[in-house]
Amino acid sequence: MDNMADTPLAALMKALPSFGECALITSDTDRRYFTKMKSSAGTLAVFRDKAYLIIDFRYIEKARKSAVGCEVLLQTDLYAQINELAKRHGVKRISVCSRQITVSALEEMKNRLDCEIDSSCALSDAVDEIRICKREEEIQCIIAAQRIAEKAFEHILGFISAGVSERDIALELDFFMLKNGAEALSFDTIALSGKNTSLPHGVPSDKTVSNGEFVLMDYGAVVEGWHSDMTRTVCVGEPDEEMKKVYGIVLDAQKAALDAVRAGITGAQLDETARRIIADAGYGGNFGHSLGHGVGMEIHESPAASPKGKTVLRENMIVTVEPGIYIPDRFGVRIEDFVVVKENGCENMTRAAKELIAL
Amino acid sequence: MDNMADTPLAALMKALPSFGECALITSDTDRRYFTKMKSSAGTLAVFRDKAYLIIDFRYIEKARKSAVGCEVLLQTDLYAQINELAKRHGVKRISVCSRQITVSALEEMKNRLDCEIDSSCALSDAVDEIRICKREEEIQCIIAAQRIAEKAFEHILGFISAGVSERDIALELDFFMLKNGAEALSFDTIALSGKNTSLPHGVPSDKTVSNGEFVLMDYGAVVEGWHSDMTRTVCVGEPDEEMKKVYGIVLDAQKAALDAVRAGITGAQLDETARRIIADAGYGGNFGHSLGHGVGMEIHESPAASPKGKTVLRENMIVTVEPGIYIPDRFGVRIEDFVVVKENGCENMTRAAKELIAL
Repeated sequence: MDNMADTPLAALMKALPSFGECALITSDTDRRYFTKMKSSAGTLAVFRDKAYLIIDFRYIEKARKSAVGCEVLLQTDLYAQINELAKRHGVKRISVCSRQITVSALEEMKNRLDCEIDSSCALSDAVDEIRICKREEEIQCIIAAQRIAEKAFEHILGFISAGVSERDIALELDFFMLKNGAEALSFDTIALSGKNTSLPHGVPSDKTVSNGEFVLMDYGAVVEGWHSDMTRTVCVGEPDEEMKKVYGIVLDAQKAALDAVRAGITGAQLDETARRIIADAGYGGNFGHSLGHGVGMEIHESPAASPKGKTVLRENMIVTVEPGIYIPDRFGVRIEDFVVVKENGCENMTRAAKELIAL
Repeated sequence: MDNMADTPLAALMKALPSFGECALITSDTDRRYFTKMKSSAGTLAVFRDKAYLIIDFRYIEKARKSAVGCEVLLQTDLYAQINELAKRHGVKRISVCSRQITVSALEEMKNRLDCEIDSSCALSDAVDEIRICKREEEIQCIIAAQRIAEKAFEHILGFISAGVSERDIALELDFFMLKNGAEALSFDTIALSGKNTSLPHGVPSDKTVSNGEFVLMDYGAVVEGWHSDMTRTVCVGEPDEEMKKVYGIVLDAQKAALDAVRAGITGAQLDETARRIIADAGYGGNFGHSLGHGVGMEIHESPAASPKGKTVLRENMIVTVEPGIYIPDRFGVRIEDFVVVKENGCENMTRAAKELIAL
């Protein structure tokens, strides 16, 4: 087990005694995080000194080949198997992830398991704490995902022109990323144009791009389960003065926030750095969302860089920096990079150009 | 509210008093089902005589335009708003969906809501009961989705040839469906070839198709939130005798099950119809999954057509009929249609050819 020393699973085992003697990991994402194997079913039972992946026949061969750090057991009668393992390990108390498990699943466990069940937030908190700072190999996957997204950005600049629809732009980005190594998309790609760019959560429509309009694209790729996230706003033809002005303010705010990222500040302090610049420029009412969020095996994770973000940033946390200004019925601009927090600053994982591009 | 007479929301309101005075719908799918509006957040509070959609600023404009059957409220302080509504409607007991809500979400509700909370399975059961039989307009959406999938099938027959990879086939199907009206894919498209077809849940790889191999494709499109599901197995070049024989057995089993579908039989009886034919042909050990499942706003819903499926089929339930034979390290065949259950039979929504195609 030497190579387990610094794995997420080893960290969970180490954290265990403080809140329970066995941790049941049931969510697809957490299970993949700890075992490195993707599946849509299965239960990871983690004891102080050993972990077991109990999984059904559909995944058993794959699990035996690829799940790491755990003994793989064919699922026959899940709860009987967990009871047997608990007995073997002399365990009386089992913890579950209260932010993942449903009320009815907990009910069934209470009926079927012989152990006391801890359904407080202790295990969910412990898992989040392990996941929040990224390991080097995890960061490398995220960077690989981001490189795919950036290739897609270069590609799409040659694709966008007046007459192309938002939906076509989104599909072209998606198809390009999937053809170029992405195992999946980080989330439903956002591609908006003209007035639609003022909707922070707009959905690509059949509207076609016109000359003089902004096109806003927010998207990402997934590699080995790790997500990337970026937003760029470009102009088709020449932007007018207000568009140039607003773009400049967002870019200034974004750069200032990037300069401010470092271990030791809170998410709220980071958010404020950008928010103040936008407010001072007279657009305080047009930045209705948070500055950023963590990214990892999920597209939205801790820490939050929001006005209420109390988490203190630490080395190797990942956070997006994505200020925006949205002017209803006119246009919106958002520019998003994402960074790895370091002791005295950050490493920006996003390389795509962000000075205003006029296509 | 005349046009509400036969809506899902009206049905839920009618069911309400039997298990609570207010139902809180929080899952994305259920909320979309009842309001016809897609969002990734929001709470639908349903009282005996009125429903409210409480939703945040990102969706508020869209909700005001498109959510049906409910009053739309901007979310400010969710639990305070629900308390206020409960007071206004004189309600003391609120039900939540125990199969949807997490343990920690329930905990928060218990802390913040003034009402007694029913977290039994009553509301989840009631919602499932409303969803299980499809309305005519729902069936029309599903058929529209299936027509897109069938166009993609015709298209892919011209795309598949020796040398093309499984991943390319999957991406081509996906891209075609999304370009031709699908709002999303029903699930991660399965496209397998050769030996890989023996894995019922295989993932498309970079393996290229060789002459004389089966290609198995299982995929679907989504229209207005409604899913389709189909599987076809075709051969590149000429199949050998065993491939032809096995294909014929699966097709016989599938046709027999289609003939057997009608209101009044159980899912287990339907499953047995196909399973017996496959077992009698000597391949009983090679059909390791259920015959089928319901399809609707989710790709897997009730009723289950499995050896344990106790649900009695009723008019306008939807069920897939997808027997398969999987011979490890050789090949697999699965053929899937899906049907609407009728009193004396069924309406097959799948039109794609299913006699063995040699490309």
